[in-house]
Amino acid sequence: MAKINENYMKLQAGYLFPEIGRRVSEFMAANPDKKVIKMGIGDVTRPLVPSVIKAFHEGVDEMARAETFKGYGPEQGYAFLRETIAKYDYKDKGIDISAADIFISDGSKCDTGNIQEIFGHNNKIAICDPVYPVYADTTVMAGKTGNYDSGYYKGIIYMPCTKENGFIPDLPEETPDLIFLCFPNNPTGIVATREELKKWVDYAAKNKSIILFDAAYEAFITEQDIPHSIYEIPGAKEVAIEFRSFSKTAGFTGTRCAFTVIREELKAYNKKGQAHPVKPLWNRRQSTKFNGVSYPVQKAAAAVYTGQGKKEVSEVISYYLENARIMKESLTQAGYEVFGGVNAPYIWVKTRNGMSSWDFFDKMLNEANVVGTPGSGFGPAGEGYFRFSAFADHDSTIEAMDRIINL
Amino acid sequence: MAKINENYMKLQAGYLFPEIGRRVSEFMAANPDKKVIKMGIGDVTRPLVPSVIKAFHEGVDEMARAETFKGYGPEQGYAFLRETIAKYDYKDKGIDISAADIFISDGSKCDTGNIQEIFGHNNKIAICDPVYPVYADTTVMAGKTGNYDSGYYKGIIYMPCTKENGFIPDLPEETPDLIFLCFPNNPTGIVATREELKKWVDYAAKNKSIILFDAAYEAFITEQDIPHSIYEIPGAKEVAIEFRSFSKTAGFTGTRCAFTVIREELKAYNKKGQAHPVKPLWNRRQSTKFNGVSYPVQKAAAAVYTGQGKKEVSEVISYYLENARIMKESLTQAGYEVFGGVNAPYIWVKTRNGMSSWDFFDKMLNEANVVGTPGSGFGPAGEGYFRFSAFADHDSTIEAMDRIINL
Repeated sequence: MAKINENYMKLQAGYLFPEIGRRVSEFMAANPDKKVIKMGIGDVTRPLVPSVIKAFHEGVDEMARAETFKGYGPEQGYAFLRETIAKYDYKDKGIDISAADIFISDGSKCDTGNIQEIFGHNNKIAICDPVYPVYADTTVMAGKTGNYDSGYYKGIIYMPCTKENGFIPDLPEETPDLIFLCFPNNPTGIVATREELKKWVDYAAKNKSIILFDAAYEAFITEQDIPHSIYEIPGAKEVAIEFRSFSKTAGFTGTRCAFTVIREELKAYNKKGQAHPVKPLWNRRQSTKFNGVSYPVQKAAAAVYTGQGKKEVSEVISYYLENARIMKESLTQAGYEVFGGVNAPYIWVKTRNGMSSWDFFDKMLNEANVVGTPGSGFGPAGEGYFRFSAFADHDSTIEAMDRIINL
Repeated sequence: MAKINENYMKLQAGYLFPEIGRRVSEFMAANPDKKVIKMGIGDVTRPLVPSVIKAFHEGVDEMARAETFKGYGPEQGYAFLRETIAKYDYKDKGIDISAADIFISDGSKCDTGNIQEIFGHNNKIAICDPVYPVYADTTVMAGKTGNYDSGYYKGIIYMPCTKENGFIPDLPEETPDLIFLCFPNNPTGIVATREELKKWVDYAAKNKSIILFDAAYEAFITEQDIPHSIYEIPGAKEVAIEFRSFSKTAGFTGTRCAFTVIREELKAYNKKGQAHPVKPLWNRRQSTKFNGVSYPVQKAAAAVYTGQGKKEVSEVISYYLENARIMKESLTQAGYEVFGGVNAPYIWVKTRNGMSSWDFFDKMLNEANVVGTPGSGFGPAGEGYFRFSAFADHDSTIEAMDRIINL
């Protein structure tokens, strides 16, 4: 008799975005004359840049001729892409990461989910609250938690990120084995300083914990001295795995390419307490359950690092950041307390007079015809907050903000 | 302290292909004047067909314009591709599978590996011997086995496929919960008749087991009356998951697209013995740990089903099958007992005089300068057999066979 993975029964329904969709559809049906502006989902809207398109086409053309056709590629990714990443994202910035430390994949959602598989069920996981839901859900699926109760899965260490601690989690009381951190943060748009990251690296080293560092939004960092990679912190190579993505950096949400960085020095432990390198485990996982990223997509991703590609991609990032700047200014002008938006494409707004996240959602939808994401959907500590994304087009962004100012 | 998944320690090193590579490199270094012909790895060599290339380019062009740009797609795959598959692979052949039953993915290796995650550790798995190594390895990683011993992982039910049973496994003595079957088979090239598949479907129904049916090579079936899908068998929708791929059908090994079919009727059981539909579990797994296949790749895959696309793809399949026909004839002429090659791109050869698979490998390499795959690398019951793949180019195939005939 085939038995299900019972851990899946603990998972809560993916309530947030379906519920947003339901309320928006209902509103639009009742108000067909209103133009609803969507600033909810964290998906990009600008097209792939010309350099990327050119390389993508070239990759496709190579697949059309027997002499240049590519069959199975290396599961870890083509050397040309891994070497390019190592040079431009790391070595040129003084960080000692080589092509051999880089694993190309089809997305950071996949990587941050799949990474759980190489660690035992007996690991205690820490995540921020509010947080990107995939970290918690994949922890549940992997059998590392108890049941759900009042917004929390038992067995997960939740680290509240609120106005009071500047949205940077405090070191938890209970010691975790694996620690998910994401900076620039989704949903708060907050970044961690060098000192704050050092605190976490030292903490992980002291406890032999591993930091799972999601840097999907690093391309949006504008302020000097904010680390783009956790490996800028001394000792991080021994305690951290870094996840990077082309999704937000270069508009690859529908094109699919990302990468994970693991150094030889990173160790986890067997039941006898003996150290074991983590990198061969991930290599084995990827070689066995993954078969590499589409060759033309890898060609397209490599074009992000050419002189012209970098220029074009940075113009797109600036476009979104200009949206974020306008949103931050407008929402402040409208009397809201506003966080993020300087080094990230997300604006995190505190509601006024203790209004709940969902009441604020309804107010924005009904009165300004603007859709955002209720903060409480990212975790209980997000209650009373609201996320706007800066990925809409420029004119819609200005119009949305005008409407909110004039409420 | 971060703990590793101890199950990974049970995995045997991926010995087969690295060892082949080592011996071939050594031979080529010592014999630089010899032209070695490779018929080992099951990777395609013909380029993508023109219809696919055209659609692939069109997909890339859509990503270049804001009006047609695609961000995150549906995790389950675009409706246009799922509907096309449902129509041409199933409905037009009288099989009641709809778009809603189809999950697009980036490969059958990923799907046959990841599918384990939705089933509990307490499932007993049955696999053929010899077999594609991913089924066993992912079973080990998921913690469903004991240690490795003399070619077998404890806890897995191995079903020998030998000349004596026509390479079709007998029903096992111990009852499995999950049964991996692959027809047309890798490595033996054998297909299962309708009666043989019916035997398995009835067996699974009786025992509430689930068949994981890998049909990656179905496009190579030439004989009438051999089922292309397990869903051609009455009752299969209640007991089987089917895996299909564009890798071998349309040369997508480096392009990456596949799909998995699960019907609402398929049930697995919780610890109380209550039936639970499997499809929502897979949907949840894919929605949480996967983010869809690259949009231009899905466009390219859909082109396989156009009138012109079908014609072009079938010409490529015929090219490989003509290789297989020549190989089967030549190897028979050379005095070998030969299996497969009629409905599959693999030729399964019995060595003579009890020669071991690896001795035969060395003989082929040293005397004919032809590389194949030792059957023992696919499992202990493959000892004394050898796999040739029909994916080399036509001229090389003829030359390789001439050399073997003239040994």
